[in-house]
Amino acid sequence: MASARVPVAVLGASGYTGGELVRLLLEHPGAEIVYLGVRDAANRTLAEEHPFLAGRTDLVLRDLDAAAAASVADFVFLAMPHGLSAEQAPAALSAGARVIDLGGDFRLPADAYPEWYGFEHPSQDWLAKAVYGLPELFADQIRDAQLVANPGCYPTPAILGLAPLLRAGLVENGPVLVDGKSGLSGAGKALTDAMMFATSHESVRPYKVPRHQHTPEIEHILGLATAGPPPRAVFVPHLVPQVRGVLCTSYVRLASDATTTEELTRCLAAAYAERPFVQVLPPGGMVDTKRVRGSNTIELQAVADGRTGQAIVIGAIDNLVKGAAGQAIQNFNIMNGFGEAEGLSTVGMYP
Amino acid sequence: MASARVPVAVLGASGYTGGELVRLLLEHPGAEIVYLGVRDAANRTLAEEHPFLAGRTDLVLRDLDAAAAASVADFVFLAMPHGLSAEQAPAALSAGARVIDLGGDFRLPADAYPEWYGFEHPSQDWLAKAVYGLPELFADQIRDAQLVANPGCYPTPAILGLAPLLRAGLVENGPVLVDGKSGLSGAGKALTDAMMFATSHESVRPYKVPRHQHTPEIEHILGLATAGPPPRAVFVPHLVPQVRGVLCTSYVRLASDATTTEELTRCLAAAYAERPFVQVLPPGGMVDTKRVRGSNTIELQAVADGRTGQAIVIGAIDNLVKGAAGQAIQNFNIMNGFGEAEGLSTVGMYP
Amino acid sequence: MASARVPVAVLGASGYTGGELVRLLLEHPGAEIVYLGVRDAANRTLAEEHPFLAGRTDLVLRDLDAAAAASVADFVFLAMPHGLSAEQAPAALSAGARVIDLGGDFRLPADAYPEWYGFEHPSQDWLAKAVYGLPELFADQIRDAQLVANPGCYPTPAILGLAPLLRAGLVENGPVLVDGKSGLSGAGKALTDAMMFATSHESVRPYKVPRHQHTPEIEHILGLATAGPPPRAVFVPHLVPQVRGVLCTSYVRLASDATTTEELTRCLAAAYAERPFVQVLPPGGMVDTKRVRGSNTIELQAVADGRTGQAIVIGAIDNLVKGAAGQAIQNFNIMNGFGEAEGLSTVGMYP
Amino acid sequence: MASARVPVAVLGASGYTGGELVRLLLEHPGAEIVYLGVRDAANRTLAEEHPFLAGRTDLVLRDLDAAAAASVADFVFLAMPHGLSAEQAPAALSAGARVIDLGGDFRLPADAYPEWYGFEHPSQDWLAKAVYGLPELFADQIRDAQLVANPGCYPTPAILGLAPLLRAGLVENGPVLVDGKSGLSGAGKALTDAMMFATSHESVRPYKVPRHQHTPEIEHILGLATAGPPPRAVFVPHLVPQVRGVLCTSYVRLASDATTTEELTRCLAAAYAERPFVQVLPPGGMVDTKRVRGSNTIELQAVADGRTGQAIVIGAIDNLVKGAAGQAIQNFNIMNGFGEAEGLSTVGMYP
Repeated sequence: MASARVPVAVLGASGYTGGELVRLLLEHPGAEIVYLGVRDAANRTLAEEHPFLAGRTDLVLRDLDAAAAASVADFVFLAMPHGLSAEQAPAALSAGARVIDLGGDFRLPADAYPEWYGFEHPSQDWLAKAVYGLPELFADQIRDAQLVANPGCYPTPAILGLAPLLRAGLVENGPVLVDGKSGLSGAGKALTDAMMFATSHESVRPYKVPRHQHTPEIEHILGLATAGPPPRAVFVPHLVPQVRGVLCTSYVRLASDATTTEELTRCLAAAYAERPFVQVLPPGGMVDTKRVRGSNTIELQAVADGRTGQAIVIGAIDNLVKGAAGQAIQNFNIMNGFGEAEGLSTVGMYP
Repeated sequence: MASARVPVAVLGASGYTGGELVRLLLEHPGAEIVYLGVRDAANRTLAEEHPFLAGRTDLVLRDLDAAAAASVADFVFLAMPHGLSAEQAPAALSAGARVIDLGGDFRLPADAYPEWYGFEHPSQDWLAKAVYGLPELFADQIRDAQLVANPGCYPTPAILGLAPLLRAGLVENGPVLVDGKSGLSGAGKALTDAMMFATSHESVRPYKVPRHQHTPEIEHILGLATAGPPPRAVFVPHLVPQVRGVLCTSYVRLASDATTTEELTRCLAAAYAERPFVQVLPPGGMVDTKRVRGSNTIELQAVADGRTGQAIVIGAIDNLVKGAAGQAIQNFNIMNGFGEAEGLSTVGMYP
Repeated sequence: MASARVPVAVLGASGYTGGELVRLLLEHPGAEIVYLGVRDAANRTLAEEHPFLAGRTDLVLRDLDAAAAASVADFVFLAMPHGLSAEQAPAALSAGARVIDLGGDFRLPADAYPEWYGFEHPSQDWLAKAVYGLPELFADQIRDAQLVANPGCYPTPAILGLAPLLRAGLVENGPVLVDGKSGLSGAGKALTDAMMFATSHESVRPYKVPRHQHTPEIEHILGLATAGPPPRAVFVPHLVPQVRGVLCTSYVRLASDATTTEELTRCLAAAYAERPFVQVLPPGGMVDTKRVRGSNTIELQAVADGRTGQAIVIGAIDNLVKGAAGQAIQNFNIMNGFGEAEGLSTVGMYP
Repeated sequence: MASARVPVAVLGASGYTGGELVRLLLEHPGAEIVYLGVRDAANRTLAEEHPFLAGRTDLVLRDLDAAAAASVADFVFLAMPHGLSAEQAPAALSAGARVIDLGGDFRLPADAYPEWYGFEHPSQDWLAKAVYGLPELFADQIRDAQLVANPGCYPTPAILGLAPLLRAGLVENGPVLVDGKSGLSGAGKALTDAMMFATSHESVRPYKVPRHQHTPEIEHILGLATAGPPPRAVFVPHLVPQVRGVLCTSYVRLASDATTTEELTRCLAAAYAERPFVQVLPPGGMVDTKRVRGSNTIELQAVADGRTGQAIVIGAIDNLVKGAAGQAIQNFNIMNGFGEAEGLSTVGMYP
């Protein structure tokens, strides 16, 4: 158990990710929320933003002001729209705070931002120092980082499933085809027709084909993880009618048609043997978003199809936990020397 | 409009597909149901099988007896578990009836059955005469066929999306990677834990990886459609928490990286210009299972990803209509010289 | 079958009710849509409003102009927000068109509008001539009406369940307690947080307690139906996580504790023996919104609880069909002398 | 925080309630699971029963043997079908264990069992000593009880909402009309058609009208809570398409038409001012099952409808937590002198 409470700030507390972060931090023994920033804070309470948190804290909501946050908090979590983090983070970092950004602003090389995010990156010095916060692959760098870029929801299962197989040379270095399925909470809280109940119920549909911004993230981080050239990735996300859960099914050629499902499984199991949140399913097991809901666990399975020479690698997470707020807290724990699972559940809520 | 009512039988009226078939046939101006066969018919009424059909017909339920059915019906629809159709169909066919089998027993070459369905095909003579009932590709053969094998739910959008592109040489002849997503009704009415509400709600999960029996169907029919060697296919089906709807996302290499989304779209649009049930979406459009629910329509889109040299082809249908009962009636219409859309809606129920 | 097509207009074609109306009218043999009015029509097509209707008609969208609509149509359907119908209807009526208003502006006595709808009724002359369009109770008046007020979604099952029992004196004349449950489509297409998928999934919740505007409608129409003093009604609506379906559970004291479920059932069955869309379930049967989805059918059941002296009367409909667009077409059929079920299904889409 | 771990047994660990109990107990600092009993234990692991709990404990599953359980555990939780608890409990009790029964076998007077549960109660001595485990009303008796009857899911919100108003004389002593809505998990894990996804999706429907066994529980406990004659209750449960969540809407006459919503709200707020799990909403607030999901919290609201003289009292819980496993642990905490909220969350998982 953590022995002291670290003062933390959350900027962007009003979205689904922000709410999940506050929920987890309120019950975290090593953290104390001292600043909650939201857009248009004026006179609003946390309960107005998140009625399910009514009465759990008497903190007043404040503005999205990173400098103000850093003046009272040692850690600043950013849960803001793309582009805003890149603008706000430097003020907190310069004031000496450690920052975990849950958005996409510090995950890619600078030259990728114009093409994939549509803006010129405004703080390339800090970007160069950012560490990608996927603890199962980069814990050593996360430990002492001042700025951590928390991974995207889709890249988390895609990368965790593929990286060990690529490193071991069991599969070819791309192209990897990643077919993603996500519940609606992954798309955030904006009031759009696409997010309505009547629109999404009984609806499976792709979106942003073939230009979703998680594509270069998958490519770039797989390159880092294998210390080799990044593989090409095709990524097609789909919305499915549920609230939580992301499942990615990745297809990549086996290096040898003779490779078996058992070998792929052993490779994954060995890679994550010591990691508290990774469940590698035995051959025949099928991952399920439902089993990981509410937990920081990721389920992984790998299948070799000798008939066609393809590997199929599938991962499932709760996008708001392992895909966002939970992973941020996992990084926070590592950065503070706390137990990696402090304040995080490894067991989902079922059914 | 049809001028006379053809006497028809449905064997296997108790499942979801059987119920949908009865619903559509009851309102079809060219059909008259004269025989409804179910397992363990004894003393039961249609309303006991399908309470939503209570009071719509006073037909007595009878046994799964193809000869008895053929003695009163000119057409026999088979909606039975795998293996049973192959046993029952010959009796109806020998009696002169025309047969549409909604199961998988007459879709593949004989030598594929042991491997993919687990049985030695018992009526290989009839199998050799069977026509694959995908009207958009094989209408000429369907017209005069005595035995039609109605396509599987996943193969319908996968094949209709890929066949024109393969024929035009715009994409390579495999491997094709088909990622399928299906609502729960596709898995039938069996009382298993996997089909329970509490199990499937908030759950996306793969199943039967990599050995689903629709894999050889996709390969074999694409070979027939292109009159060339069948491409290799990897097929991974997933269950998503909805009742109706199948969406297949197919990945295949472009023959040329320079091929555009517009070219792929034009190819599909040209192939299906005269077909009443195919909607090819313009570039930028995204298919949606919700829009086709309750209708016999298929939505298709094709995207060229020049960056990676991949084509992405996506199709969406209502698995119980275009993926089963509706397509069977479309075949029935063609076989009788009725209007192809007789008794079928091209507009879904929305929302 | 209808022998000629009546030119019809739909004002307010952009909502869920408007879309359903267009869907049904497109397939109705006795109607021809000649005018589709929407808010801010400029340059938009029907497919932009309702992508599922893409390609079904080449009508250009026009403004919400009742006079313009009445200049080309004999019938004008109004599917507009409260208050707007009362303003628009007179122009169509004065031009000689017959009008079916799917909103609430012509259902109540004039003096109820300030209290329950928040406005002074602007066209009390026409209000006085309006007929309540519940065909099972008021068909004789509907036949020759120029202005029909189509019933609200909750009042439809509540009134159809209670009216025969009140008329027969089997239950006391109130208070009636009506507990309503509705899918999300009943609340319309406005982009509010309450309508979001993530908000409504796994959520049952009441709303507008105790001041929903369907309360006086239930009271007033039950008074008309029994030609007696209107009973007092308490009405509590709830949202449940589905798209279509309204179920009302009504509680009222039995006139005699000795009354049985069989007697109540017989009373309902006798009242609706000749009505094509009413299914009275036998004792032990339980109504289900799923069975009536997509159809114009209403399921009713009545239970006598002798132990407490209470009657429990439950009704289920598809709120967009029998609760809105389907009932409007049922009225349209009656007003034109068509078969009452013309263009309407009595069988739901299941599952 | 609890200072020592109490050895506990769970008999009936295979159902949804049993799984939830194990999930909560595994993370409870004051409990150690020493015995897990299931039907047909032979050779099965916990992960076979509950794959989401795979790897969390290496306990071997054992039989449903209360004596064996009591030989190693100080506390025995029973989560078994009706009738079985009454048979098993005495063995554990006689061995000195304290027992919390999550079923219905110890909630009613002996003479109610033949009528409502269909069996003659086999252990009436123990039944006479059982305490009803609703901590907000009966904590003093629970503290030292050897046998606690954990409340039913529907009675929990119905009773907690009505009892203070009855005691204060603000409402008449019946009849109370309780309209219940429940997610599917409340009906347990049996493989029946009613529990299938395709059956329940888009379905609201009543069941067991008017003879649900929670009816006498509501009546009897309201009598105990007010120390007066039990009011008559009519109870109609409905299934709604979600997994977790029970909401009860209760209707009862106000003692005075002049009573206001504010007075009812104040009465509830005062009654539960010190209770950690009760959230009484201010006037205008609407309870929501979604906000309490995964937590042991109950939301309550009360509305006075002066127009009709009726009080409307609405409560929402997570049926598997406050309606079953969480409430059992709340009782366990009280019985052990632990903090009442030990191991229980007051914040739901949202969205």
